[in-house]
Amino acid sequence: MIIVLKAEASEQDANEILDKIASLGLKPLYMPGVERTVLGALGDERVLRQLHLDAYPMVDEIKPILSPYKLVSRELQAHDSVISVGGVKVGGNTFSVIAGPCSVESEEQLFGISQMLKQQGITMLRGGAFKPRTSPYSFQGLGVEGLELLKAAREEFGLKIVSEIIDPNDAKLMHDYIDCYQIGARNMQNFRLLEAVGEQSDKAVLLKRGMSATIEELLLAAEYIINAGNPNVILCERGIRTFETATRNTLDLNAVAYLKQKTHLPVLVDPSHGTGVKSLINPLSRASVAVGADGIIVETHLNPKEALSDGHQALTADDFATLMADIKPFVAATGKSL
Amino acid sequence: MIIVLKAEASEQDANEILDKIASLGLKPLYMPGVERTVLGALGDERVLRQLHLDAYPMVDEIKPILSPYKLVSRELQAHDSVISVGGVKVGGNTFSVIAGPCSVESEEQLFGISQMLKQQGITMLRGGAFKPRTSPYSFQGLGVEGLELLKAAREEFGLKIVSEIIDPNDAKLMHDYIDCYQIGARNMQNFRLLEAVGEQSDKAVLLKRGMSATIEELLLAAEYIINAGNPNVILCERGIRTFETATRNTLDLNAVAYLKQKTHLPVLVDPSHGTGVKSLINPLSRASVAVGADGIIVETHLNPKEALSDGHQALTADDFATLMADIKPFVAATGKSL
Amino acid sequence: MIIVLKAEASEQDANEILDKIASLGLKPLYMPGVERTVLGALGDERVLRQLHLDAYPMVDEIKPILSPYKLVSRELQAHDSVISVGGVKVGGNTFSVIAGPCSVESEEQLFGISQMLKQQGITMLRGGAFKPRTSPYSFQGLGVEGLELLKAAREEFGLKIVSEIIDPNDAKLMHDYIDCYQIGARNMQNFRLLEAVGEQSDKAVLLKRGMSATIEELLLAAEYIINAGNPNVILCERGIRTFETATRNTLDLNAVAYLKQKTHLPVLVDPSHGTGVKSLINPLSRASVAVGADGIIVETHLNPKEALSDGHQALTADDFATLMADIKPFVAATGKSL
Amino acid sequence: MIIVLKAEASEQDANEILDKIASLGLKPLYMPGVERTVLGALGDERVLRQLHLDAYPMVDEIKPILSPYKLVSRELQAHDSVISVGGVKVGGNTFSVIAGPCSVESEEQLFGISQMLKQQGITMLRGGAFKPRTSPYSFQGLGVEGLELLKAAREEFGLKIVSEIIDPNDAKLMHDYIDCYQIGARNMQNFRLLEAVGEQSDKAVLLKRGMSATIEELLLAAEYIINAGNPNVILCERGIRTFETATRNTLDLNAVAYLKQKTHLPVLVDPSHGTGVKSLINPLSRASVAVGADGIIVETHLNPKEALSDGHQALTADDFATLMADIKPFVAATGKSL
Repeated sequence: MIIVLKAEASEQDANEILDKIASLGLKPLYMPGVERTVLGALGDERVLRQLHLDAYPMVDEIKPILSPYKLVSRELQAHDSVISVGGVKVGGNTFSVIAGPCSVESEEQLFGISQMLKQQGITMLRGGAFKPRTSPYSFQGLGVEGLELLKAAREEFGLKIVSEIIDPNDAKLMHDYIDCYQIGARNMQNFRLLEAVGEQSDKAVLLKRGMSATIEELLLAAEYIINAGNPNVILCERGIRTFETATRNTLDLNAVAYLKQKTHLPVLVDPSHGTGVKSLINPLSRASVAVGADGIIVETHLNPKEALSDGHQALTADDFATLMADIKPFVAATGKSL
Repeated sequence: MIIVLKAEASEQDANEILDKIASLGLKPLYMPGVERTVLGALGDERVLRQLHLDAYPMVDEIKPILSPYKLVSRELQAHDSVISVGGVKVGGNTFSVIAGPCSVESEEQLFGISQMLKQQGITMLRGGAFKPRTSPYSFQGLGVEGLELLKAAREEFGLKIVSEIIDPNDAKLMHDYIDCYQIGARNMQNFRLLEAVGEQSDKAVLLKRGMSATIEELLLAAEYIINAGNPNVILCERGIRTFETATRNTLDLNAVAYLKQKTHLPVLVDPSHGTGVKSLINPLSRASVAVGADGIIVETHLNPKEALSDGHQALTADDFATLMADIKPFVAATGKSL
Repeated sequence: MIIVLKAEASEQDANEILDKIASLGLKPLYMPGVERTVLGALGDERVLRQLHLDAYPMVDEIKPILSPYKLVSRELQAHDSVISVGGVKVGGNTFSVIAGPCSVESEEQLFGISQMLKQQGITMLRGGAFKPRTSPYSFQGLGVEGLELLKAAREEFGLKIVSEIIDPNDAKLMHDYIDCYQIGARNMQNFRLLEAVGEQSDKAVLLKRGMSATIEELLLAAEYIINAGNPNVILCERGIRTFETATRNTLDLNAVAYLKQKTHLPVLVDPSHGTGVKSLINPLSRASVAVGADGIIVETHLNPKEALSDGHQALTADDFATLMADIKPFVAATGKSL
Repeated sequence: MIIVLKAEASEQDANEILDKIASLGLKPLYMPGVERTVLGALGDERVLRQLHLDAYPMVDEIKPILSPYKLVSRELQAHDSVISVGGVKVGGNTFSVIAGPCSVESEEQLFGISQMLKQQGITMLRGGAFKPRTSPYSFQGLGVEGLELLKAAREEFGLKIVSEIIDPNDAKLMHDYIDCYQIGARNMQNFRLLEAVGEQSDKAVLLKRGMSATIEELLLAAEYIINAGNPNVILCERGIRTFETATRNTLDLNAVAYLKQKTHLPVLVDPSHGTGVKSLINPLSRASVAVGADGIIVETHLNPKEALSDGHQALTADDFATLMADIKPFVAATGKSL
């Protein structure tokens, strides 16, 4: 429920209502604005009715939040959220490009890629230390050693670090090594993991859509994180599973446009997993720009043939330079800047 | 099989080989180029081997066509096909916009829309006279009366006509009324219909992808039309059926980029059916431009609320003007012109 | 709308109401029962209201048909329809087995299979003369020659013939050769084909579910045939297209149980296409029996390796004997007979 | 790699080879049989080649395991695994029925259901204490209090307990309360959870297929558990996500038959989630029996209308009695016993 206060309402008026909300076991929200203060009350429908807000003269308007998701909804917050990844802004008037290898493999590999990205003006590095792999016999990532390498790359090149978390117990550990937790498609409904990054950190969380998750389920997964205490969520469309086998997944750009209308959170696109075909990454990156995404996250590798995972879809240094040149005029057409 | 002749080969050399190809029951293809003449031979692998092309001194190179589709393949023809719709070009350096109502309903309706489109610089009008409807109790279209209205709109406004064919027996009848046959998603594998427009006409055919057809099946359906004698095929991605229900279909822009690499035929996008949500048509149209599509086909209606079919996804005159303004900078960014 | 007449209503009372229904342009239905006569009126909601049935004293009860499909609905007819295929009954207390090759290839092939089936007690032979193939370069069937062979098998072995129709123009031609038209998955929404077998014949029609058709769309496709005049429709689940690639299709037995509740028409299962894997045909046939299907249609071939189409999923004579033995106790458990 | 020893090989011969396997960092497996001893070596292909098994005279035959999954494969173990759930056997010649409420709600609710199940001869009770819910605002389960109630039901009625685990940290805690961990569809690829129940317990694990997981991915998820040390895995098909909306999921019985051929693990079916429609549970349970499943797991509730979750698909006491009577003749037809 959204509670719009009158222009003349004082902070004390707001607090009085917030106390009432909390006293009933509901979740109170305080959203001061330039002209008006807006309050929120989240919880059970029947309890919400017990608020009797008509008794508060400073309440101007009451609006229910119709969608099943609340905190992520544009009904609650109309303007775009801009999320900080170690100080770098994602969302708003920026088109972000996050790049890096699927897996962290060695210092040589990671520093080589970091240098290349730095030269291209990239400020955020992705790289997996913990890899969720379909087979227990596949390379599972370097673990803490990988995190150390990421931290070293951060210090050496000033890049902000995006890395995947797969265990709720790692939330605290990773906090010092990274600037943004990534939650992968397979873990989108690993609710304990969502709660862990929501409760134990205020660092940004890049939440990828599950491979057969509906848009509503993605928004409710984001709601778990924010409800647990961390509002810094970035969504990511990475392709859904369909009958088509020519591409690894079917990138759902409908979902990106739809999400931008329903939520105030930034929405990125992962064209590497979304297509699984190297030659399709550029056209789909351009399309992601044009559809209104807030950025892309792409896999790069200086020697894709020797990559320990996902080499077939990794861009080389030359490929990446071409990609950046390729999307530039489209970013300009949106009025955003890289 | 593709047979590249030497630069000094004469037309007679080519004919000799073509005769040999035909004599074995194979399909001969003659593709003269500026520098070299290229021949094709299509048919059973085992028979192809009986050609013994090493016996012809003017043959420079022989290449197998690896894909199951041949005539539509870029392996056979590397450059883009540009298809004429009543003289208007689709493909190449043009971004085409085809617009009009789902169903032709009346002269007033059709002329009103036509005038609006004309003012927006649109040259191709879509409108259904024969409607394939899920229920036998739904409006089935005006039939020949609808075709008459389309013809009248063509004469009055100079618009080229795109209209759906659903019965092989209508191919000859429709020929005089329209400039481009549309084959709908439900009929993509109605092989007798594909053969009918292939054999009985040389007018353009806009072939829509079936709602659960793979990209390869779409290309093989196009192959049916060309193999039957009509090379003027335009492909159209219109959304596929997935688990997601927030949108009517999932527009597969991966497929558009993939098709542009595999075939020389133009590829359009239908964002109206591809999303089924009016507010998503503009962002997905921009994305279609950026991904490399050769155009879009959109549903428009001056009074969507009174439309006899698909009113919820039809753009009004104002919506349409906004759409055109919206895509303009993105078309410019591709280097194409509207 | 369903109109239940009072027990004492005469045939003249019924006719009076039927005339009124027809006079308004609605479709009248006459369904005399042992105790009561039931009438039906189908058409536009607003016109239905103009019937003013309260003016007829012999009307006992009026019930709307809530589903979008009417003639196929159990709301209209509660008891199971039993459909005759050349005198052999499908539906009710029988579990039917239709078998035969994917394509008719030669007299030797067809007679060999027919003899084998006859020995197994099978009475209905399937075999394609017109084949809808994904590629124009694949074997397209023997055409009329194939129909002649099917007719010969009918005469020689007394088998009833089930064969696919792919062109509305063939409805009359095929009528003399076959006992049951088959409409394949790709043509489920080829509405002109549905109308052709509905208008031009009263022979049974085996309607297969499209590979991404919803259950409701299947029922509406059947409604097209019955609405056009032919009530003898048999439905067939043959697998839907999903992300799973271990099997050719995903056989949807949920749909069979759901259909049996919603419609009075018989429902068969095609485990050959539904799995595409020979070793899965027996277990899924048993499951089809148990879920309540009215029969199965399976592909058989005496030399699967030499089959011109679908050889990998065809059962040999031995396989088929095993299948029959395998399903027998499960058919007994349902209380039906083979 | 599977290593078949000669009949005359001694235990010492086996140990020698197992030591060699282990010394190279490969995983050794010891599978003594009545006539022959079979050994296994799992790990990197290149290392496997370094075993030089031709040097061991007691090695009779060496066979590679072709599938990507090894420990779960029938290539490794041809005979059916029978898994103990607190002493009750699942798999082999038994058809198991596990039943109970979606969520544990109260002692009254749980004991009521337990008594009813006991009367029906059921020995395994399912009930969720930790519920993975799409929305953070939905009932999340009673947690440890729920586990206490389950333990009480075990003591009172002698039922074996099956309950869902959603956090790797709960593996040890739950060990004392339950007889079988359930891993839900959303957590099928929560690899840390798979490892937790694999490493920290030897109790049975019921692993449900993810809603868009391929069969191979399910087998590899099971491989994670066994590879971590716990061989007692039971698989469960619970419906996959497709375009069809008439049912909550599409129950994939193809997968059950396919799994029974590829793996030695027992395979159950969950017709409650697999259909989401109460009236479809019985026919699909019968089909599950007939297709060769080793059992079913169904949701029951004495007052479905008051259930805190999934009430619409829960069977009442009467429904459940009907279900048991309904499947009985089909179980008999398979030669198994309830």
